[in-house]
Amino acid sequence: MTQLSQAKSGIITEQMQRVAKHENIDPDSLRELIAQGKVVIPHNVHSPARAMGIGKNMKVKINANIGCSDMGSSLDEELRKLEICNRYQADSVMDLSTGSHLHEIRSKIRENTDLILGTVPIYAVAAKLEEQGKDIRSLEADMLFDEIQAQAEEGIDFITVHAGINRFSLDSHLKDKRTLGVVSRGGSLLKRWMLHKNSENPLYEEYDRLLKICSEHDVTLSLGDGLRPGALSDATDSSQIGELIVLAELAKRARKAGVQVMIEGPGHIPLNEIQANVKLQKCLCDDAPFYVLGPLPTDIACGYDHISGAIGAALAAWHGADFLCYLTPAEHLCLPDLDDVKQGIIATRIAAHVADIARGHPQAREIDDAISQARRKMDWEKIFALSLDPDWSRQRKNNSSMDAQDHCSMCGNLCAIKTDKANE
Amino acid sequence: MTQLSQAKSGIITEQMQRVAKHENIDPDSLRELIAQGKVVIPHNVHSPARAMGIGKNMKVKINANIGCSDMGSSLDEELRKLEICNRYQADSVMDLSTGSHLHEIRSKIRENTDLILGTVPIYAVAAKLEEQGKDIRSLEADMLFDEIQAQAEEGIDFITVHAGINRFSLDSHLKDKRTLGVVSRGGSLLKRWMLHKNSENPLYEEYDRLLKICSEHDVTLSLGDGLRPGALSDATDSSQIGELIVLAELAKRARKAGVQVMIEGPGHIPLNEIQANVKLQKCLCDDAPFYVLGPLPTDIACGYDHISGAIGAALAAWHGADFLCYLTPAEHLCLPDLDDVKQGIIATRIAAHVADIARGHPQAREIDDAISQARRKMDWEKIFALSLDPDWSRQRKNNSSMDAQDHCSMCGNLCAIKTDKANE
Repeated sequence: MTQLSQAKSGIITEQMQRVAKHENIDPDSLRELIAQGKVVIPHNVHSPARAMGIGKNMKVKINANIGCSDMGSSLDEELRKLEICNRYQADSVMDLSTGSHLHEIRSKIRENTDLILGTVPIYAVAAKLEEQGKDIRSLEADMLFDEIQAQAEEGIDFITVHAGINRFSLDSHLKDKRTLGVVSRGGSLLKRWMLHKNSENPLYEEYDRLLKICSEHDVTLSLGDGLRPGALSDATDSSQIGELIVLAELAKRARKAGVQVMIEGPGHIPLNEIQANVKLQKCLCDDAPFYVLGPLPTDIACGYDHISGAIGAALAAWHGADFLCYLTPAEHLCLPDLDDVKQGIIATRIAAHVADIARGHPQAREIDDAISQARRKMDWEKIFALSLDPDWSRQRKNNSSMDAQDHCSMCGNLCAIKTDKANE
Repeated sequence: MTQLSQAKSGIITEQMQRVAKHENIDPDSLRELIAQGKVVIPHNVHSPARAMGIGKNMKVKINANIGCSDMGSSLDEELRKLEICNRYQADSVMDLSTGSHLHEIRSKIRENTDLILGTVPIYAVAAKLEEQGKDIRSLEADMLFDEIQAQAEEGIDFITVHAGINRFSLDSHLKDKRTLGVVSRGGSLLKRWMLHKNSENPLYEEYDRLLKICSEHDVTLSLGDGLRPGALSDATDSSQIGELIVLAELAKRARKAGVQVMIEGPGHIPLNEIQANVKLQKCLCDDAPFYVLGPLPTDIACGYDHISGAIGAALAAWHGADFLCYLTPAEHLCLPDLDDVKQGIIATRIAAHVADIARGHPQAREIDDAISQARRKMDWEKIFALSLDPDWSRQRKNNSSMDAQDHCSMCGNLCAIKTDKANE
């Protein structure tokens, strides 16, 4: 029984209890939101993960991507990244490893975190084909479903599947004159296969087979946006919206089968189109949780895409996006290193928190009010403790050559708070 | 004759010609916008600065603050920061120095940049009083006006004056139960003086004297928001809006006297109140250019306030703010160092650019479209050249252990663009 099917049957699970407590919401209201498909708790029946709710009335959650590659990173390095995800409070981690020993890597990641764990199973399949000297054109549907089955049995909490690229959305896509074509790895692989075989996407054609696996293990589906725009000039075009229509249909079918489902969203989108994109997703998909990558409101910020991503993510989440995939300073350039992972998490947490406040989440602003009270009292240790990154704040303040308790070196003796206090 | 008075007389100055060319706008349309007070060109008659337009239909501009302090930084250090402002393309610099040798410092800064130069003259006065072992309570109006006169003669392009704290707005402020009182240095000094002397703010009471100086030298007034909120809990309150009403009155009087004028804005504002704040300023102040600090949509991001500031600034600028004061990672903690200045400028440029695109500035997206075309071609040198920080982008890509021309180490061989190209 999945969280969704239990919610539909009126059952409040242990995970729902935990989430309700964490979000400060009545458990039965939460159950109802889950039953309606407006909230998911990605929690495989075999998973040791801490249950977290994603969706309507929940605090906005953030995901960090990590992953080995035979070419670029080792398991040790990725486990150090995982430690950063734990420490800086990501809500979930996606293992995007490619290369060999993928099962072992996932096991090690699972052992070292109680965060929600997600994957993109087609990466593993593509990596295996590459190991055999083949490419994606040699894919057979069974390989993909076997991989998904294996990962479901391992306890993966959610998987991204690019089931929305079907003959309909691909035809629409092929008419678009895009600057950057397909920028989703999974999307590009499936497009290549479909054009080569002149066949329907197996994830779409055999979607019920997918639903059966997910239903048995309560794997939450994250319906990937394989045709997301990778450039502002490709934003909100027929490719993207055509695929979203298919994703909406697939979300309905998933819910009917008792499978929890989220929708993934763009991509590169100008700031003035973000609200419409979120609204469109919410309308088409009956308020299914929306998982966005960015969105990036400019194409030129490489080296600083965690900042442009935070701008887009804050706006998207304020208008209803529920789950933010981080972007690191390495995006568009290279595999993130340890500091990139930290910077990406912090920037995305800022976006999520800013949106929680703007959405009027009842508890969101308590920490802001508390830090501002501490600022009034110049209680620096409390300011550090309440700040996003206490060690870093303390280090910046205390390393300053003119550190003082009753002001900081920014304004020195002309500190406004100090001056204003003299009036009391 | 100021740019404004000349614009009113139908004269298109050399500076207007330059700005019109830079902004790709018809010179007479620009002149009309200046005549209406909707655009300013901060350009003291003695100034060697490059003329830049700030306001309606202009690209969004950004300011970087630098400044020595006897306690925290030297002239050499600040000149290195200035070099970063030049290199990373701030549009203006404010010298917020306190301590001694202020005239010499401003001269050196002026010699080393052709960016617009601004100051907050009351800082110099407060520093002089401190040198004499006194505090702001010993201020006499003449000291303030003499300082402003001297700086106007030196060629300062714009000055921040906190003329909006008058008996009306101060009375309103004293009734507010704020978490953080006054967080503007200039505002806190004038409030202290007004309460001590039980007198009207000299900048308000003798505003015509101020206008006469500014008119003679074409010093643009930046009407400071001395009562800006320094905490989310203080946002959009009677203090802030009461002062804005006074600023609107002062803006009208400035324009009538031929003095160019901008309005300064908050501060700490939740994301969902930013649009209303900008709209309110634009309505009350007849579309006077709006110069915002942040706004910061959370209080807890110290150490990363360049990111939270970029989120608020992008939204504010999209909705009409024209000039963005940078925030650095050091905000709320210490005096910015060289890297803070760079990070602050880059984050604020991202916000400005994202807003230019969202505002539909006709040329804004050309660079995004060009970088995305380069990305399609995997023309890395062109990608670097078009990115915000070419050296940093190049370094990140090329230092990667698996650098390659036809992909980057983020996706390796599974690069979506590479896969998708195989379909062509």
